[in-house]
Amino acid sequence: MWGMIATWRMAAEGITKGAEILKKGGCAGDAIESAIKEVEDFPYYKSVGYGGLPNEEMEVELDAAYMDGDTFDIGAVAAIKDFANPISIARSLSNEKVNCVLVGEGAEKYAHKLGFERKNMLSDRAKAHYRKRVKEVKEQELKPYIGHDTVGMVCLDASGKMVSGTSTSGLFMKRKGRVGDSPIIGSGLYVDSEVGGASATGLGEDLMKGCISYEIVRLMSEGVHPQRACELAVNKLNEKLKKRRGEAGDLSLVAMNNKGEWGVATNIEGFSFAVVVEGKDTEIYLTENINGKFVHKLATQEWLDNYMKTRMAPIEE
Amino acid sequence: MWGMIATWRMAAEGITKGAEILKKGGCAGDAIESAIKEVEDFPYYKSVGYGGLPNEEMEVELDAAYMDGDTFDIGAVAAIKDFANPISIARSLSNEKVNCVLVGEGAEKYAHKLGFERKNMLSDRAKAHYRKRVKEVKEQELKPYIGHDTVGMVCLDASGKMVSGTSTSGLFMKRKGRVGDSPIIGSGLYVDSEVGGASATGLGEDLMKGCISYEIVRLMSEGVHPQRACELAVNKLNEKLKKRRGEAGDLSLVAMNNKGEWGVATNIEGFSFAVVVEGKDTEIYLTENINGKFVHKLATQEWLDNYMKTRMAPIEE
Repeated sequence: MWGMIATWRMAAEGITKGAEILKKGGCAGDAIESAIKEVEDFPYYKSVGYGGLPNEEMEVELDAAYMDGDTFDIGAVAAIKDFANPISIARSLSNEKVNCVLVGEGAEKYAHKLGFERKNMLSDRAKAHYRKRVKEVKEQELKPYIGHDTVGMVCLDASGKMVSGTSTSGLFMKRKGRVGDSPIIGSGLYVDSEVGGASATGLGEDLMKGCISYEIVRLMSEGVHPQRACELAVNKLNEKLKKRRGEAGDLSLVAMNNKGEWGVATNIEGFSFAVVVEGKDTEIYLTENINGKFVHKLATQEWLDNYMKTRMAPIEE
Repeated sequence: MWGMIATWRMAAEGITKGAEILKKGGCAGDAIESAIKEVEDFPYYKSVGYGGLPNEEMEVELDAAYMDGDTFDIGAVAAIKDFANPISIARSLSNEKVNCVLVGEGAEKYAHKLGFERKNMLSDRAKAHYRKRVKEVKEQELKPYIGHDTVGMVCLDASGKMVSGTSTSGLFMKRKGRVGDSPIIGSGLYVDSEVGGASATGLGEDLMKGCISYEIVRLMSEGVHPQRACELAVNKLNEKLKKRRGEAGDLSLVAMNNKGEWGVATNIEGFSFAVVVEGKDTEIYLTENINGKFVHKLATQEWLDNYMKTRMAPIEE
């Protein structure tokens, strides 16, 4: 059995490409890197890679992480600017025994020395979004912070190896240097090939409070099904945050175990995800929370059409 | 009941100062900030604050984190340069709902705007260590990476509030931008006032692979005593790393629950820690691992004298 699961509809083309690698007996690392690069390279996704929305200084600062479930090798970059594929840099760092998590200028120096592709990651479209938001915030006292659609993936290959990876431009209008959960092992992602893996998207500051990806993998290690593990972990953290803080930020999790079984839970409306397993094509689902239980419904053609249309619509400034 | 526990002998003066605050009914946040500042300010500790050893570019890059066990507020800085007290910046960030984890230049801009004390954190002594190591590495092919004596603390105040904090200059000769476990919630520290807290020191890259501070607090939440929780978590991660990777880096953990009971476990020889609880003076212990069980012995006067002597000995270049 092989498979991939990923946060948001935007991951669908990526995991379809990854599945081609897995089908031919390729390794989980190659599949997930290829899948996440696809999302990073697509200019119309506002929260990952090229076209990602900038921080308050109009800089696109990117975070990414990679974890190998066989060896527990980890690699991550945070607040890195002007490189095309943060996931590839994170994967490269996972080969290092020490110095495998690098931030800011240090991460850029490493990537430069290793010859990773330089790219001005601030697209014209992202600039338009920035200008529009600056104006809106001034005029309407809008909250600047929206958008935290991290792409997070878990991958199982035919040999049984599992890998997890994330990539994001983080919160739109974030403070310079802000890091969310995505590059944080245990929060944004966690994977153990003997068990399974999980990955998160949502408000990083709140996801980190529960080490939620680690917790889901831990539950799966006790024999809990990925769906139940996601439900238990998301509902518990959501309730805990509400009790202690009065509110909980967005929390959405995807998980897959080492049999290719998967699960998803969220505390928001309209969370979409994409999944592909051996013997099936890539499927895109929307998750509904019905009294703490989650029902996943295949996205309709209408929803899919509308999704792309809104992503690619002109920006009225 | 109130109390504090901290990694390494170097924390003793700090927690003694913190205990003065706790004795008067002061809050855990003030006690831990005061305690960690004491360690940051002492010039002879090579791995925390002023006097901390530099990265490969001879820059002192500092990491620190703060977590509030009542509200789960978190604050952290990583790879920050030239500020006297990273722990105070981390604590200040914990008051922010978003943007509470900042790295590199962004962290420095935040600290500058809030008026935190600027300080050239590279001491003459640290420069001498750097020059000596560069020479040694050249002549003897020594490994550059040693030293990861993070100060990590857990504090319980008389009102029942718990806080955890960390501060470190990280690995000596680390790559620029390298981040270890210390500023990572769940790995370097975790605390829940309804349960207890834990904090780590050792090889950050390996500590992160187990979300080990979170795991210890989780075990305590099931009613496990802090000593047993530390033992279980450290022994399990140590074995897992050896099995999957052939070796495990240094892992040392301290924990305290919300009754002031504490525990310590390590996979190294000679791990020291400091603890103070209501009704007792600060005590300094050394931990011995006897077949996976840990025996904590009070440090002898000879050991204590020798400790300070070696820390303050002239550096022969």
